[in-house]
Amino acid sequence: MKILITGGAGFVGARLAQRLLARGTLGGQRITQLVIADQAAAPAALLADARVQGRVGALLAQAEGLRDEAFDGVFHLASAVSGECEADFELGLRSNLDSTRALLDALRHRREQGAPPARLVFSSSVAVFGPDPAVPLPPVVADDTLPTPQTSYGTHKLICEQLIADYTRKGYLDGRAARLMTVTVRPGRPNGAASSFFSGIIREPLAGEASLCPVDATVSHPVTSVGNTVDGLIAVYEASREAFGGRTALNLPAINITVQRMLDALQAVAGPRVRERVRFERDERIAGIVANWPKGASAARAAKLGLKPEPNFEAIIEQYIADCRATNPAALKGLDA
Amino acid sequence: MKILITGGAGFVGARLAQRLLARGTLGGQRITQLVIADQAAAPAALLADARVQGRVGALLAQAEGLRDEAFDGVFHLASAVSGECEADFELGLRSNLDSTRALLDALRHRREQGAPPARLVFSSSVAVFGPDPAVPLPPVVADDTLPTPQTSYGTHKLICEQLIADYTRKGYLDGRAARLMTVTVRPGRPNGAASSFFSGIIREPLAGEASLCPVDATVSHPVTSVGNTVDGLIAVYEASREAFGGRTALNLPAINITVQRMLDALQAVAGPRVRERVRFERDERIAGIVANWPKGASAARAAKLGLKPEPNFEAIIEQYIADCRATNPAALKGLDA
Repeated sequence: MKILITGGAGFVGARLAQRLLARGTLGGQRITQLVIADQAAAPAALLADARVQGRVGALLAQAEGLRDEAFDGVFHLASAVSGECEADFELGLRSNLDSTRALLDALRHRREQGAPPARLVFSSSVAVFGPDPAVPLPPVVADDTLPTPQTSYGTHKLICEQLIADYTRKGYLDGRAARLMTVTVRPGRPNGAASSFFSGIIREPLAGEASLCPVDATVSHPVTSVGNTVDGLIAVYEASREAFGGRTALNLPAINITVQRMLDALQAVAGPRVRERVRFERDERIAGIVANWPKGASAARAAKLGLKPEPNFEAIIEQYIADCRATNPAALKGLDA
Repeated sequence: MKILITGGAGFVGARLAQRLLARGTLGGQRITQLVIADQAAAPAALLADARVQGRVGALLAQAEGLRDEAFDGVFHLASAVSGECEADFELGLRSNLDSTRALLDALRHRREQGAPPARLVFSSSVAVFGPDPAVPLPPVVADDTLPTPQTSYGTHKLICEQLIADYTRKGYLDGRAARLMTVTVRPGRPNGAASSFFSGIIREPLAGEASLCPVDATVSHPVTSVGNTVDGLIAVYEASREAFGGRTALNLPAINITVQRMLDALQAVAGPRVRERVRFERDERIAGIVANWPKGASAARAAKLGLKPEPNFEAIIEQYIADCRATNPAALKGLDA
């Protein structure tokens, strides 16, 4: 089978590609080709696999060329992140709406030529939820909570959920939207996402660097690991339509946790000297965005697919440390200091 | 002030134009120019008013030209209807999504040149609601019921609601989305909407013609008159943002009524001979679409704006009869037969 991962060079996408290549199969079929489409080049370790083809460039520019290509499965992860979309409205429309529409239309085109419908998993986001004056946000957002997004990013994710549901209803594809919770600990440098600090307050101290937390310690949020997220995307792909249940998006599992508890876990795993590298310095712009985010999420439909959250935040930190030990020990130099 | 009505030559749009011209003001300002943009020519009676300018053509083609035009207010009603969108997927995307996006971007462009944000009322639809296997539809849909549309038309309306909310959040316009209930009695011929029979079973018997009802008499649905709908659109335009309450769409008022009760009302107003011109002949395609529609709707936020449903269905029929007496007495020839 031939698979496409858009955004496949990113943190979640590359991990998904790695996992799929290691499994060798998806939904009982052997994976013979894996196309990674991304604005950035995929990691060399992935490109070294004979099954992998990397394609660098904007998805919008690539989509037209996908019309006659026989993909059995697609993981559509490519997206401009929340901070980018707030800063550049047109970039968000182009990267998140126009690109998705072009991808869906390419898959529809092939279906109209007689091909079977491609199966597509879309990475939506917990950012579809937010408080609207007319509709208060519940403390814990469920699969069927009314989404009232408070960012362009969340708006675009919700719109894509709806487009995919309608293309699926029409039989143009077999689409499933899964809402990713905030994934932490992301390696590398801070990115444009307003949620970037959820990784920074763990990653920087472990690297021996100071980290500023831009929100209060009482801020609560649903978070999970990259491994748990990738498990969720694969399970959603492999579910029967009946097991997936309907055409609306589902929430992936998360731990609902405060910043304080995250730092307690950091101290438990890495000791007080690492923990003490985090200082609180409120950033009103970030704090304002985060204040509109859910404090927790539930994932009843994902649970029916056998998906569970990580047991605790310590396990998430330990996963990050194990990953760094394998690929980038320098990221842990604060651990031994 | 200068106003644009897209779809202003249609049934609701022309009635709205007529009402605005008769009032002479909107939100306390004098209406000096009223542009009616529509694929069809506006009624001659409207074009005869010196304040009116008619523009015939697709909205998508017209939108670019709107970028430098100083509209204070916009009623965006132009849309392909549900039956059309089901029959022609690309037509629906173009007419309902691309056109709305182009209109919003034209208004955003002007705002970015320093103009104040235009106020925009969008006619969304009760068709955003539907039953999804994962989310059963409540018997009565409220303002904050989770929309899970079961048609492309409903999907597009929901997407436009979300786009307008986000453009409003960013300050590019002052947008308000109001969900229209099924408007009846529409004059003229049946159209491509699956809801067309809700007018046909009243209109045809009054004209002395036989009418086939494609669904069972027990089918219940939220319906209202064109006058009540126009009142709602104007009230939503004139509301303060605080009174409108948030950026999510609100339901306009409706009577929740069965087909049987509609026919009882027809008999009460027009007599048994008129009523007997309706025969039941199930159309599986129409019945299947309608089975996914809400059986009733509530309108709590509209009520706070002072909006009420028609007192009963008899009043809706009487409004249609009065309209026909004024403009097209031939449409009532069944009444005297």
